[in-house]
Amino acid sequence: MAHAVLVSCSLNISSGSRSYSKPLNHLAPSSSLSLHVSRSPFGRVPLEANDRSQKCRTISATAVSTGQEARVQPGSGSDHASNEASARKKVMVIGGDGYCGWATSLHLSNKNYEVAVVDNLVRRLFDHQLGLDSLTPIASIHNRIRRWKSLTGKDIQLYVGDICDFDFLSEAFKSFQPDAVVHFGEQRSAPYSMIDRSRAVFTQHNNVIGTLNVLFAIKEFGEDCHLVKLGTMGEYGTPNIDIEEGFITITHNGRTDTLPYPKQASSFYHLSKVHDSHNIAFTCKAWGIRATDLNQGVVYGVRTDETAMHEELCNRLDYDAVFGTALNRFCVQAAVDHPLTVYGKGGQTRGYLDIRDTVQCVELAIANPAQRGEFRVFNQFTEQFSVNELAALVTKAGKKLGLDVKTVSVPNPRVEAEEHYYNAKHTKLAELGLKPHLLSDSLLDSLLNFAIQYKDRVDSKQIMPSVSWRKIGAKPKTVPA
Amino acid sequence: MAHAVLVSCSLNISSGSRSYSKPLNHLAPSSSLSLHVSRSPFGRVPLEANDRSQKCRTISATAVSTGQEARVQPGSGSDHASNEASARKKVMVIGGDGYCGWATSLHLSNKNYEVAVVDNLVRRLFDHQLGLDSLTPIASIHNRIRRWKSLTGKDIQLYVGDICDFDFLSEAFKSFQPDAVVHFGEQRSAPYSMIDRSRAVFTQHNNVIGTLNVLFAIKEFGEDCHLVKLGTMGEYGTPNIDIEEGFITITHNGRTDTLPYPKQASSFYHLSKVHDSHNIAFTCKAWGIRATDLNQGVVYGVRTDETAMHEELCNRLDYDAVFGTALNRFCVQAAVDHPLTVYGKGGQTRGYLDIRDTVQCVELAIANPAQRGEFRVFNQFTEQFSVNELAALVTKAGKKLGLDVKTVSVPNPRVEAEEHYYNAKHTKLAELGLKPHLLSDSLLDSLLNFAIQYKDRVDSKQIMPSVSWRKIGAKPKTVPA
Repeated sequence: MAHAVLVSCSLNISSGSRSYSKPLNHLAPSSSLSLHVSRSPFGRVPLEANDRSQKCRTISATAVSTGQEARVQPGSGSDHASNEASARKKVMVIGGDGYCGWATSLHLSNKNYEVAVVDNLVRRLFDHQLGLDSLTPIASIHNRIRRWKSLTGKDIQLYVGDICDFDFLSEAFKSFQPDAVVHFGEQRSAPYSMIDRSRAVFTQHNNVIGTLNVLFAIKEFGEDCHLVKLGTMGEYGTPNIDIEEGFITITHNGRTDTLPYPKQASSFYHLSKVHDSHNIAFTCKAWGIRATDLNQGVVYGVRTDETAMHEELCNRLDYDAVFGTALNRFCVQAAVDHPLTVYGKGGQTRGYLDIRDTVQCVELAIANPAQRGEFRVFNQFTEQFSVNELAALVTKAGKKLGLDVKTVSVPNPRVEAEEHYYNAKHTKLAELGLKPHLLSDSLLDSLLNFAIQYKDRVDSKQIMPSVSWRKIGAKPKTVPA
Repeated sequence: MAHAVLVSCSLNISSGSRSYSKPLNHLAPSSSLSLHVSRSPFGRVPLEANDRSQKCRTISATAVSTGQEARVQPGSGSDHASNEASARKKVMVIGGDGYCGWATSLHLSNKNYEVAVVDNLVRRLFDHQLGLDSLTPIASIHNRIRRWKSLTGKDIQLYVGDICDFDFLSEAFKSFQPDAVVHFGEQRSAPYSMIDRSRAVFTQHNNVIGTLNVLFAIKEFGEDCHLVKLGTMGEYGTPNIDIEEGFITITHNGRTDTLPYPKQASSFYHLSKVHDSHNIAFTCKAWGIRATDLNQGVVYGVRTDETAMHEELCNRLDYDAVFGTALNRFCVQAAVDHPLTVYGKGGQTRGYLDIRDTVQCVELAIANPAQRGEFRVFNQFTEQFSVNELAALVTKAGKKLGLDVKTVSVPNPRVEAEEHYYNAKHTKLAELGLKPHLLSDSLLDSLLNFAIQYKDRVDSKQIMPSVSWRKIGAKPKTVPA
């Protein structure tokens, strides 16, 4: 059975808007969607934030069945957050088509939350523009949602549009009326933000203005809604003192205060998250917004209970030098006999976590919301590793699978300390009940086997770093064929 | 003698550009300017940052004489920064048509710096849109520059355009080749940023992206150029410990580091300056930019040696509730028999300085540049006052002039502590030689007499606060006639 939800995108701005309905050609014959499309085509090229004259296009569709029998298949892990607690709480997942967002959307849906995915799908466009691709083949968001419905009987609402377009975001808010918003909807790659000026500007505009719009939408349409915002451990940089969770108590000249932990971000992407944190903290104080800032570490792994249910639910796995992150990248490199690329000395130490813990942490934050006016910061990671330690672990795990894993030090494209003190607190999520999946031989084994399974899809040209923190230029950088 | 400099504004972006030359009608008959104008009209309405499709328009004109004999009339104050030191250093003053920017441009020109004003003049548009006006009549930027040339023989270059438009900014940089950039070119009113969502978004977009563009322009076209950026003391908020200059040394769990001072800004405007500071600090580290962040207090006064030379050089003086700042506003209120409007309890304490010290501080920063890669922060104010203390000083000074000054407490439109500890360091500019003009009876006397002189221009409807930090809405707010 196919059915559609109509979302009207009213534009109050001066220039005219037009709307029309037409079938979406690539949908299955059994489905139809009514669209209200504003004055511009979808798929703005995000290279000049100043030129974002294109406005909203809203697609809201409940998933349609594909004729398979619906059956609920609950996840087997992280059941400590009770299903009662959710009580059909409505959660809007902005960026719900991405790596963390998709896994989170399914996890929350499985846990009986009512989920809406809000995404402009621009992450897929970045791949096209840069000539990249996920290691794993991923289905379209429409087919993902349909498959989920057919497997579990659960609906996930879909709103396709840009949260920088407040008209679109308003309509999505008014239509879905979320109890919580999980905000993954940002450009999330540090190297991407350092490609050229246009991408630097895009990243800060997209992330900062998008988040401002989310804050205004909450204030205007649902003041009690809990914002769960993805920050990054990278906001803190690598200070020579212990990193606390968001705030630090300082005694200075005989007086004491608890203040926001000093920020030392080291890319335009990481800086955009710093800006978000300051903006959110202000609105908690001025408007009584309730917010949780999840300063997440580096995520590894690909399978969660839900994404493993069907190949059409498979998550993306990035191994390239722009979107790939340390451990995932190393496993793919090992699988294709490429030396592990350690940047510089390899002493760079960060917090890491399994993607199964990402989805668990987000659920814990939603199930235990911040108070009105509270700006709460959790450091979301489970273990610290240096890059050299990760390389050694992957080398060892590869050996067990008969792989001869080599490591090469490449000139560091980033500007960062390569040997430094690092000790970051991460107790608040554990106090809420997080049961971590620590990095284990079996996870590494599984991740390596996963990479070997898809090794024919690897484009080895995408492995070496091509973006330099120091050489970034003002002129647009394009990728040759 | 009239002469003009042609600035070509080349556009490398996809959509076409057109250029043409035509005379600027409102110029004096003896002058002519060649213009290269890109595809859109001047004067975008800055209400939707996403819609900024309009591109650069460059006007570069040296001032033209008006037939009067040119004569140099050097300023009498702050001569400690030697003219030799400047040695015809080229200084680009972004926002050079504004309150601080205009006074600074003239001061630097008088001190023998080669000055270019870069401004999109949008501050004048804000007045039109909100129905506001400066207490003082101010001449157009073109007439200001011509008058300065006629009085002193000194040229000030003019580039009219938007620094958020990188094509425009690039051309201005390549044409002028500054040794230092003084960046006042931001939306600088906290209440303006809290009018509605559009103004909040505009403020953060305009300020953050504009500053990013300046940083990229320095990296691309003049890596040695010194950025002197106007920050604000409001970045620090009102912590319960002493405020240091940019950085604080923290000992925590037995380890010590010097880190950026924690930021607690309390409007979207103040937050934009926090974002700028973080972005600039990163580029100093990553690219070797040399930067001075001047965390300025509240500026009062209107006359400087240079602006006092002729009525066409007169600076603006804002008394309205959107752009007016505490002491200036109080003097105008006293002049028109309006009670002084103290917000809430009036214990709000801030750093203040005379506009004659603003121009002196900027000159000191330029004359003593930061090192390559150095991110230097100076707290730019000379004295601390609470709002109640200022009201008492104005009341006393008014009495001497025969004014019966009353004070009224109005509900605080802001979200801020009304009684708090405040002790902010401000020694670095003094160490460079700042000779402060402390708030004196004679200054208050002069400012009050100035306000009385122009009292017939006061629109008393603009005095009471109309912008609420808590009630800001998502919908565009317009001002009725």
